[in-house]
Amino acid sequence: MSATMTTSKQTKRKPVPLNGVDTPTLFATINAVSAQPELGKFQFRAKNRWLSGTHSQSTMHGFFGAGGEQTHIAPYSAEGDHPAVLSGDDAAPSPVEWVLHALASCLTAGIGTIAAARGIKLNRVESTVEGDIDLRGVLGLSADVRNGYQGVKVSFEIDGDASPEQLEKIVMQSQARSAVYDILTNGVPVSVSVKTPATV
Amino acid sequence: MSATMTTSKQTKRKPVPLNGVDTPTLFATINAVSAQPELGKFQFRAKNRWLSGTHSQSTMHGFFGAGGEQTHIAPYSAEGDHPAVLSGDDAAPSPVEWVLHALASCLTAGIGTIAAARGIKLNRVESTVEGDIDLRGVLGLSADVRNGYQGVKVSFEIDGDASPEQLEKIVMQSQARSAVYDILTNGVPVSVSVKTPATV
Repeated sequence: MSATMTTSKQTKRKPVPLNGVDTPTLFATINAVSAQPELGKFQFRAKNRWLSGTHSQSTMHGFFGAGGEQTHIAPYSAEGDHPAVLSGDDAAPSPVEWVLHALASCLTAGIGTIAAARGIKLNRVESTVEGDIDLRGVLGLSADVRNGYQGVKVSFEIDGDASPEQLEKIVMQSQARSAVYDILTNGVPVSVSVKTPATV
Repeated sequence: MSATMTTSKQTKRKPVPLNGVDTPTLFATINAVSAQPELGKFQFRAKNRWLSGTHSQSTMHGFFGAGGEQTHIAPYSAEGDHPAVLSGDDAAPSPVEWVLHALASCLTAGIGTIAAARGIKLNRVESTVEGDIDLRGVLGLSADVRNGYQGVKVSFEIDGDASPEQLEKIVMQSQARSAVYDILTNGVPVSVSVKTPATV
């Protein structure tokens, strides 16, 4: 989820589809939201169901945006579980690994989009995301250790028809406009509510 | 990823497997990490590869923990893409939806684990996670609008063989010990590095 008005001002070229990005539609979207800001209000959703132990399944289908209710072309589902060393059945990636996937996929989507907006053809984009965590936090063994990652490191390798400097700038712009990077680095207010049979 | 020493001190019952959680192993893990804190140092990883446009794929296989290199029972993979209204092919959930799945699966894993540790049998746990985002941020249309979610709301429905108060306390304890809840609400330092063909 990344684009840049700056780029459209800097470059006078007519946008053409590139890197699999429908660039004309992207700029049309930017212009539409610019003219009618309420079109930019989105709500994304996941519905989760406990299966057993530490294993659960989410479905992501409907979302609100562009002025109305939308649905994905299919109801996507995914599972989460703890590995065996963390009292799970290892039936799926762990929740903290899903965070890394969210970050990698957001930054990479931005790279594809920004490169297209700048008229740069990409050949290859790969990344490794590493998150360091001390389980004394979640295990309740130390009040001084946080529950979550202490740090996350993203290492990109990128190849495209541009100078190393141009390629690096694409990654930096994606970081500057990434929704997930912002969520992880700046935090977000999260509210949790509970209904029990007595309140349902 | 949640457990609680407090609970093991409060309850004198012998831990037995419950809710699909191998509770004796869980307490053995807590005791092992307590005795040898370096066993609690974990590193989780995702390797991502750009496919086209805003579409990419991550693989989650190896991780470090419990004193050595580990692998999941299988290399798990997942994709990410933008919906069509955001210049993607809608081939997969969007990166910001993966964040919601990460949060739901973490809190739910904690609920299963904590209930087991407290000797409470669960019948049903379902949740809806909603994240509100204003795309003027990522589209570069307003310096006053953040890129990420402005807020996230988690709504649980939980049923089990316990009082409403006990069930609510399980959810609250999961929130208090959730890695992903901590990451999202408190933020985490993220570093991004880039290699181009010139530097590879």
